[in-house]
Parts: sequence; structure tokens; C-alpha cells
Amino acid sequence: MLVPERGFPQSEFEQRTARALAMMAALEVDAILLTTEPNVRYFSGFFTQFWLSPTRPWFLLVPLQGKPIAVIPTIGMVGMLDTWIDDVRCWSSPQPGDDGISLLTSTIQELPARYGRIGVSLGAESHLRMPAQDFQVLRDKLAATEVVDCSRLLLELCSIKSDAEVEKIKYVCELTSDSFHALPEFASVGDSEREIVRSMRMDLLKRGADNTPYIVSASGPDGYDNIIMGPTDRKLENGDLLIIDTGTVFDGYYCDFDRNFAFGHASDKTKRAYETVFKSTDAGFEAARPGATTSDLWRAMWSVLEAGGAEGNDVGRMGHGLGAQLTEWPSITATDSTELRPGMIMTLEPGMSYDNGKQMVHEENILITGSGAIMLSKRAAAELPIVI
Amino acid sequence: MLVPERGFPQSEFEQRTARALAMMAALEVDAILLTTEPNVRYFSGFFTQFWLSPTRPWFLLVPLQGKPIAVIPTIGMVGMLDTWIDDVRCWSSPQPGDDGISLLTSTIQELPARYGRIGVSLGAESHLRMPAQDFQVLRDKLAATEVVDCSRLLLELCSIKSDAEVEKIKYVCELTSDSFHALPEFASVGDSEREIVRSMRMDLLKRGADNTPYIVSASGPDGYDNIIMGPTDRKLENGDLLIIDTGTVFDGYYCDFDRNFAFGHASDKTKRAYETVFKSTDAGFEAARPGATTSDLWRAMWSVLEAGGAEGNDVGRMGHGLGAQLTEWPSITATDSTELRPGMIMTLEPGMSYDNGKQMVHEENILITGSGAIMLSKRAAAELPIVI
Repeated sequence: MLVPERGFPQSEFEQRTARALAMMAALEVDAILLTTEPNVRYFSGFFTQFWLSPTRPWFLLVPLQGKPIAVIPTIGMVGMLDTWIDDVRCWSSPQPGDDGISLLTSTIQELPARYGRIGVSLGAESHLRMPAQDFQVLRDKLAATEVVDCSRLLLELCSIKSDAEVEKIKYVCELTSDSFHALPEFASVGDSEREIVRSMRMDLLKRGADNTPYIVSASGPDGYDNIIMGPTDRKLENGDLLIIDTGTVFDGYYCDFDRNFAFGHASDKTKRAYETVFKSTDAGFEAARPGATTSDLWRAMWSVLEAGGAEGNDVGRMGHGLGAQLTEWPSITATDSTELRPGMIMTLEPGMSYDNGKQMVHEENILITGSGAIMLSKRAAAELPIVI
Repeated sequence: MLVPERGFPQSEFEQRTARALAMMAALEVDAILLTTEPNVRYFSGFFTQFWLSPTRPWFLLVPLQGKPIAVIPTIGMVGMLDTWIDDVRCWSSPQPGDDGISLLTSTIQELPARYGRIGVSLGAESHLRMPAQDFQVLRDKLAATEVVDCSRLLLELCSIKSDAEVEKIKYVCELTSDSFHALPEFASVGDSEREIVRSMRMDLLKRGADNTPYIVSASGPDGYDNIIMGPTDRKLENGDLLIIDTGTVFDGYYCDFDRNFAFGHASDKTKRAYETVFKSTDAGFEAARPGATTSDLWRAMWSVLEAGGAEGNDVGRMGHGLGAQLTEWPSITATDSTELRPGMIMTLEPGMSYDNGKQMVHEENILITGSGAIMLSKRAAAELPIVI
């Protein structure tokens, strides 16, 4: 595997911004205001782990004309000036009395006001990463400017990946597939979930991953009952089923898929449930082509699960977008009905309840192309792998 | 080092809740509504990496009477029922039309309305982890209920650590200190920042860390110019200075400190800057006792930096709280003036500009006790370490 180049050429940010501007003109906003890590990174290339500190707010404005403008704490100035952004305005943060709000206000007020409206993410799958009171102060100061929701614009924009983005996600999908494949070499009966997860973290680093922000596990006698907790100190025994689900990262882009492993042996019921979710994934993959909707995928997958004896689905969806975040818009549900478009990267994640509360979940990552879909993760084994 | 027990006994959550209730009564609120990972975990013990997925909102209510009440997506039901919380109300999420808002509204409306007010984090160092539009819908539905800011209550509450919390932070501080101490064994001239950081990630895992969500580095000829970007692919050369800063985690609790390393040799200017931030840390440590304020610490540290030729400080503060998050309230600034209390865990982080834009930053983690402070990280070397 060739390691993809890190970062992006400036043309990538120019294209992202140009696509945004067309959508902004349709929405009739003079600018959009961004407050979250993935959104700020998308338009600026500003890439730092420092967002983990919740103390300071960070702002990026994308105006209808020119490059984005950063309004950020001084601690980020050197890093932001290293991106393609030229206009970087800083204040010394933290400063609870006025943590960037005056500076942000005056920066917005300087922008040409063609529509008198700015876009802010207020809707589904969004949050404002700033104190709610400060947002209210901003609105009051900008009383003449209408604030409209631009969350859908950003979700749609980021859902179509560039070739460079696809390359990063494919790379991390492949190395993570290889790590799952090697798991029987570093996991065996008697190991705890936590020990196995720790070994996998190290294995992923050795294979070239930058980090594994997300790696959960669940296990139990011939089945597990959830897919978002763990790892626990539970030791794997003969007859156990283990699931590990990971969001591992290369250069800021995630994979997100899981694998199931039986230890020693598995019941026929569990083997059949595994085959059912495996076939359900095939059905989703076949249905995944431009013009089909997320709900078409849901129906294709659910019909296989239902025929296989599924008693329900506790996850709430059967896949989602994927990229700079572990999960992105859209969701594969019965009612979502988002049309698939070339460049979308999605997870297929059929899950079912069976045998009195056991869960069986399977997941692969795919890219929607002009003519169908291609698998980014290396397809799981058709039969439940048994770790001896 | 003895590995601390994972999780907490139920008494820990009872005590946290009891302390909150006293503060809530003083604030005259019937309940507080929590939406973020650290706040929900603090009161419930619900501990999952799944918050990385931004799709679904999660809610926890702490009413004036009884245990907290969870209003969460079905995907989390099994995990939440495994905590001390009994009242767990679920909806199938994602459901963009009504993602838990009706369920949350009716749950709030069932609570006894003594004051007719609920607390929500709206102020400094907070954000609402839910769509802003949904919060507005909630406010409209709860028109008879006043929403007041409770951010300060939560910051103060979480700033005083229990013995069990201290034990976890001390453990991760110690193992991270040991890893920094061992760095010259896995880093040498010719290695890239990225390679060194990767080796340190693995070393930390081997020593018992759960994960390293935060590890940044910066380097340059005899100095670096920022402390929040990186690691980069820059290869270390003779005469370089390297800083690595890490927030490494055990059982959901962070350390947060850095170490500086010269490669081959360092200039007298840089050695003096190192000695200055080292002595500044001593001064901060001496000043750190109950009753002193964060601003007392700031002045104690700054006077040493100023005498040592500091040209400024680009970080915006010289330390902060620490715990379930990489950085917590309060901040050590000239004007913060928060009184230190026993049980607070703080970083001392003096930083200075010198020699035309170079930065020198040092950091240790301390616990405020009844009679002063104790060091949780193992004190850095008094002289700049040289990696050969």
C-alpha cells in the first residue's frame, strides 16, 4: 500500500470554497460562520488536536467573495498562518467577558451585505461549539443581520469526497482490514477484551494509522448485547462471541467498521445470524448506486435481515456517511430518502436482534461511484471466523 | 505502580449528586439538563467512546429529588442501564424531525416545579451538544419554565476531585512521566516528529495508558514557534529543540503536560529559557495553596518569566484545571482570580516568547491539598535534557 500524501494542495480548498459559494448564493447568505473542528478544517486545512480543549471558541467565516477569514485565539495564529488562509484575526483567549465576540462581530460587519443574512449550523447533526450565551450576544450585536440555518448545506457539501479524501479513507480502511485479519495472531481465549483492544491499537499504529480515537468491543457467551460500550476486563472464554468496532484515523480521515470473532466455537443460531448480516451487506452493496436513496439501501438490507429472523434493530439506522468524522450525514434509515451521489463514502451496517436480546452487527465501508459502489474495507469473511 | 480500580462505587455518584443538589437549591432550579459527554458521565458513570459520533443528542436530567434521569437514543439503553441510573427513557435515533425533544420535554414537565426554573450550561467553557434549533424548540415547548445558566455550578462542582479521581489522574501522570523519561531510548537525531510521537503512543500503551487522544509536537533549530500543531514529518537534526505535549488517558481521566528535549546541543539562550520556565513552575508550585487565587499563581510565575527575559506569552494563560477533560476550568490568568480549593487538580504551564518568536513552554500537573500542593507528574529535569 502506498502511503497517501498528507494534507491537501491549495486547489482542494479553492474547490471546496467554490462549491460552497454556489450553495451559499442559492441560500442567499453573505457568509457562513463555522465553529466546529471538522467544518473549520474543511475550509482552512487548519488541523490540530487542540480542539480537545473545550475552553476557547474558534471561528471561521466563509464570505461570498474571497478566501475564508479566521477569527481565533492567539495560541492558534502560527498554525493558521501556515494554511492557505491570509486573513487571521486573533484575540488573547481565554477571556470570559468577551471571548472573541466583539472581534467576530466587527469582522462580520465589515463583509459586503448583499443579502443581509448569514448562515450558521442550527439544524440536524450540528451543534454550536461556543457558549450559547455568547451566540445570543452575537445575534444581538448583529441585529440587522438575519441568521439562517446552513447545516444542510454543510452536510451535503462535505458528503461528496474528493479523490484525495477518498485516498486517505481507503488507506486507513485497508490497514484496519489487515489488522482485523491479523487479530487471531494477537488474541486468544483467556485474554480480556481490554488486552485485545490494546494489542489492536498497537498493531494499527505499526501498520501506519495515526491514532484510533474509537475502538469499542463487546463479548458474551455465544453473543453480545450492545455495540457502543467497552472494552471491559471480561476475559474471552471458549464459546464466546466478540465484536470490535473501530474508527481509526489517517491524516484526519476515519474508517468505521467492525468485525465479529467466535472463540473456540459458535452455535448454529449465531452462525446463521452472522451469515444473515453478511448477506444483508451484499444486498446493500448491490443497491448502492447513484440515484438510489439511503432508504432503498435500508429496504434492501432489512428484507434480508427480516427473512433471516431479525427480531428488530436497536442501532436506529443501518449505516451512515463517513470521512473527517466517525459518522457523517446521511443516515441509512427507512425514511431518510437521501439520494446517493458519486463521491459519497458510506458505511453499510446491518444489525439485528436475535435469540432474546443478542445483537449481531456487521459493517463495511463503501464509495459510491458513477456506476455503482466499490468496497473500501476488505470484505469480511463469509463465515464467522473462529479464534482458537 | 498499582493500577487503580476502574469505574467508581455508587457512593461516588451519590456524593456528586448530593453536592450538585445543594448548589441547585441555591440557584433555585428544579433540575439541570446536561448534554455533553463529561457532564453526563460525571453524574451517571455512562462511559462510552460513542460521543465521537455527532449524529445523536444525549440528555441527562439531574432533578432536585431522586437519581438523575437519562433521555437517550435506544443504542445506549443497555449501557445506561448498567450504571446506577434506573430511569432510562429511549427513542430510536436518528430521527431528525423530533430527535428526542418531545420525550425530553415530557420528562421535564413531569418533574416537580418548585422554582419553575431549569439550569442549562450557557456560559463560559460550555456548549450545548444538540442542534441549536432543537434547543429553541425545547424552550418554546417549556415556555412556562425559565431557563437559567448553570455552567459555573458545573465547572465548580467538577473542579473538586474525589480521592478516586485523583488516583486515576496520578496514575496516568506517573506512567506518562516515565514514558517521557524513556524518550531518549526511542528517539534520536534523524527520526521525524511523527515517528517519535508514534513510538511514544506505543510506549504509553505498553505502560498501561488506555489511549492518547492528545499528543502534539513542535521542533526547530534551537527552538519552536507554537505548541498546538504537529506532529509533522520534520526530521530532528543536531541542534534542534523538540517539545511534546500529551493528554493521555486512564479510565477516562487525563494527564496534560509537556517535556522539552534538545537534540545534540542547545544554545545558551535556549538553556536559559528552559531554566526560566522551570523556575517559574517552582514559583507557581510554591504559591499553589488553598486560599491563593489563580491570579496569585499567574503573578508568581510571570514575575520569574519577566525577570528571565520573557518577551510575551502567546498561550493566553499559564495553566488550567484538568480531569475528565484535557483542560478544565479555571484558567491561570492575570485576571481570573478563582480561589484554589483542596481537591483541585491544575496544570502549571508557564510559557514565554524569547529570541524573536521562539516559544518555551513547560508544564506540570499538581493537586491542591489542605496544606499546599503536591506534584502529580514527576518533576522534569532541572536542566534541558539533551538527546544524543
